[in-house]
Amino acid sequence: MKNFLSVKDAGNVEELAQKAIAIKKDRFANNNLGAQKTMVLIFLNSSLRTRLSTQKAALNLGMNTIILNLGQDSWNMEYENGAIMNGDKAEHIKEGAAVIGEYADIIGIRCFPSLVDREKDYSEYILSKFLENVKVPVVNMESATVHPLQSLTDLMTIREYSKKEKPKVVLSWAPHIKPLPQCVANSFAEWMNKADVEFVITHPEGYELNEKFSGDATIIYDQDEAFSHADFIYAKNWSSYNDYGNITGEHADWMITNRKMQLTNDARFMHCLPTRRNIEVADEVLDSAASIVIQQAANREFAAQAVLKEILDFL
Amino acid sequence: MKNFLSVKDAGNVEELAQKAIAIKKDRFANNNLGAQKTMVLIFLNSSLRTRLSTQKAALNLGMNTIILNLGQDSWNMEYENGAIMNGDKAEHIKEGAAVIGEYADIIGIRCFPSLVDREKDYSEYILSKFLENVKVPVVNMESATVHPLQSLTDLMTIREYSKKEKPKVVLSWAPHIKPLPQCVANSFAEWMNKADVEFVITHPEGYELNEKFSGDATIIYDQDEAFSHADFIYAKNWSSYNDYGNITGEHADWMITNRKMQLTNDARFMHCLPTRRNIEVADEVLDSAASIVIQQAANREFAAQAVLKEILDFL
Amino acid sequence: MKNFLSVKDAGNVEELAQKAIAIKKDRFANNNLGAQKTMVLIFLNSSLRTRLSTQKAALNLGMNTIILNLGQDSWNMEYENGAIMNGDKAEHIKEGAAVIGEYADIIGIRCFPSLVDREKDYSEYILSKFLENVKVPVVNMESATVHPLQSLTDLMTIREYSKKEKPKVVLSWAPHIKPLPQCVANSFAEWMNKADVEFVITHPEGYELNEKFSGDATIIYDQDEAFSHADFIYAKNWSSYNDYGNITGEHADWMITNRKMQLTNDARFMHCLPTRRNIEVADEVLDSAASIVIQQAANREFAAQAVLKEILDFL
Repeated sequence: MKNFLSVKDAGNVEELAQKAIAIKKDRFANNNLGAQKTMVLIFLNSSLRTRLSTQKAALNLGMNTIILNLGQDSWNMEYENGAIMNGDKAEHIKEGAAVIGEYADIIGIRCFPSLVDREKDYSEYILSKFLENVKVPVVNMESATVHPLQSLTDLMTIREYSKKEKPKVVLSWAPHIKPLPQCVANSFAEWMNKADVEFVITHPEGYELNEKFSGDATIIYDQDEAFSHADFIYAKNWSSYNDYGNITGEHADWMITNRKMQLTNDARFMHCLPTRRNIEVADEVLDSAASIVIQQAANREFAAQAVLKEILDFL
Repeated sequence: MKNFLSVKDAGNVEELAQKAIAIKKDRFANNNLGAQKTMVLIFLNSSLRTRLSTQKAALNLGMNTIILNLGQDSWNMEYENGAIMNGDKAEHIKEGAAVIGEYADIIGIRCFPSLVDREKDYSEYILSKFLENVKVPVVNMESATVHPLQSLTDLMTIREYSKKEKPKVVLSWAPHIKPLPQCVANSFAEWMNKADVEFVITHPEGYELNEKFSGDATIIYDQDEAFSHADFIYAKNWSSYNDYGNITGEHADWMITNRKMQLTNDARFMHCLPTRRNIEVADEVLDSAASIVIQQAANREFAAQAVLKEILDFL
Repeated sequence: MKNFLSVKDAGNVEELAQKAIAIKKDRFANNNLGAQKTMVLIFLNSSLRTRLSTQKAALNLGMNTIILNLGQDSWNMEYENGAIMNGDKAEHIKEGAAVIGEYADIIGIRCFPSLVDREKDYSEYILSKFLENVKVPVVNMESATVHPLQSLTDLMTIREYSKKEKPKVVLSWAPHIKPLPQCVANSFAEWMNKADVEFVITHPEGYELNEKFSGDATIIYDQDEAFSHADFIYAKNWSSYNDYGNITGEHADWMITNRKMQLTNDARFMHCLPTRRNIEVADEVLDSAASIVIQQAANREFAAQAVLKEILDFL
């Protein structure tokens, strides 16, 4: 694996999920593979799970890790070609990224969307600027449109908890108090579309995802109907793609509750976290045996390790 | 040792101090004990000594360390059960702590008191929320009411410098410009109460510590009288417990000076640091041969290492 | 090597540059030299290249690294002797530095000038306060007046790319939008004055460097004339030393362009980075084959490693 930017780099998604499951059984099996290799993790945005699990995965493989909170430890970057840099950006990405790349064997980067300029966000403007300027492999730690480390974790977790070969997986929009990126939903959709599952998306009208990501998924606007026979409920808020970055109505009735979970086939409840309790999901669901959100988060370590191992094998 | 939250987890405090002294003589003796183990250090508040010495101790034992500046690297947590999370807290501690726990073999946490809500602070509200939600051992890196890594260091340092089996140790309140927690004083008191020392506390009226911590210590309101025959002067400011979190009067005359040190039995001067020079303690004391504050701070590494070794032995 | 504070600690600068070049060929040759040694990197100011390259260098030598963003992770220090600490500084450097020193085998420190008080800055006030209070070796990661890790990198890079034994090296002032320290220019000048090069400095009148640093360098106020026959153009902005910390006029015509590069002997273009594109240097120069700024930045790792190796050999 050269880079891990989206599902396109994953090869067979089910096979990669199985590799992550195998790593979980013996996480130190390859603890010398990354010796004398350094991963630089660049954060343009806040992070908890991704920050810790990716570091841990790298350490499990014997790598060194260096954290760079861009903008906080250093300064903000200019991304525009030809810019006359007379503002508050102290360095151009052409130099910034290239230099970081010189000190790293693998780079991880987190760069959220603006939620203002859809075209720019969906071109993966910032991520692509890094890619243009570094020579080493890049791991996407959540970009403007996707979060593939999360999606691999999600598939891995579905495989661990599924009682069927082809479970029904429902991605359900859930309410939030502020506009969030579409990344996790986009990414989950494109992974599920490649996985051996029956995949359904449910959301209020106006929250349609970009078809590039939703693909052939069944879209049902009635949440109750969508939940019927579901084996996994994957809840997530996202802001509108069509009315870009906006929230259209409160839709408080879309919160995941026990009543709704009871419409399912004894489904497991999943969420990428962080989640707003009693806004997106009721306490009664998160605190029930159906919830596997902690196990899912714990799997981030092994998903990241599977990806880093593939990249180290390639180096 | 399962956790290290307060003196209650320390077992015999004098024995633990001796273990720390032994480690100081050969800090790399167990430098493989922590191999393939990761300590995550969570800071809700600023830190210098604790941050560096605890990392160093973990590294001496061959552990990996991951730092998380909560709120700065990630976001703030909601701690209330049943909260409807429509404010500025992006994640509930139920998920936040549980997830961090999944990536860690040991967690260290620093969480200062509010100094506003005494009942909540003295219930160790935040620390207990972490404890409820993690399965791995937790090390208290200074919480709302105690700072046991400091207290172990303090006892260790007293043993190194004491010329007697049962020295007279005086904890003296000292002035400050703003309200500080009672943690260090509380913790020092409960450790001294278990140690083989003659223990005296001196402070202006109104600064009585919670009796749960001061216990059977002799309390003397006349600083000069308290200093008489002292072998160790341990200075520290704290805000009022009774008039919770407030400062009652300036008491500039409580600053530790050479004149006061001369009332002692050639006592050593101790302070947990940081200290406000010429407010809490005069330059003439800190810069004198009587001061062992730097040696005391250096011992933080070995105290932390003794604790981490006990926990690793238990794992 | 005891400390690495300026060119005075470098010994023979050309020999040290050759050591860095040798390390580049096999950076893991001494990867056990730093075992059980810890470098604490203290940042009072932002950093990208220095932060990453110095960590990387230490890791290449098998050291542990601990980062401390002073003021951000902890609190600000008081530096004045005799201060009555009733302000916003929570700890005196006498304690702060001494304590950090206790946990470190080597300390790196970055402390920029105020650009307000010239006498204080040029006395290396902050750096010297650290030096007074620590017992371990100190590496200057850019101080008030010099940046020797950069200068060693610069000489190393000149030797790698020079076609002559004694190249003509031109340090050219370049425009910027805000006042910058003289550090890089000072330091480059004092290293070039000790190296086997023909050294010329060019800048607008009013930007004369302190003669302690510019020494016997040829100073030419006409940029075009200075560029003639140059083998290396080293561009950098600095604020006025005489009219301390100020900018005297815009001098936009001092930007490095292709027209000016064509006046040279097919010179390589160098800059310590970060650089303001199209203010200091035109895109056409940075994006041309003449530019070696990325290679130069990459060499920071090996220059730092050469210095750390000398210090470890001394320990």
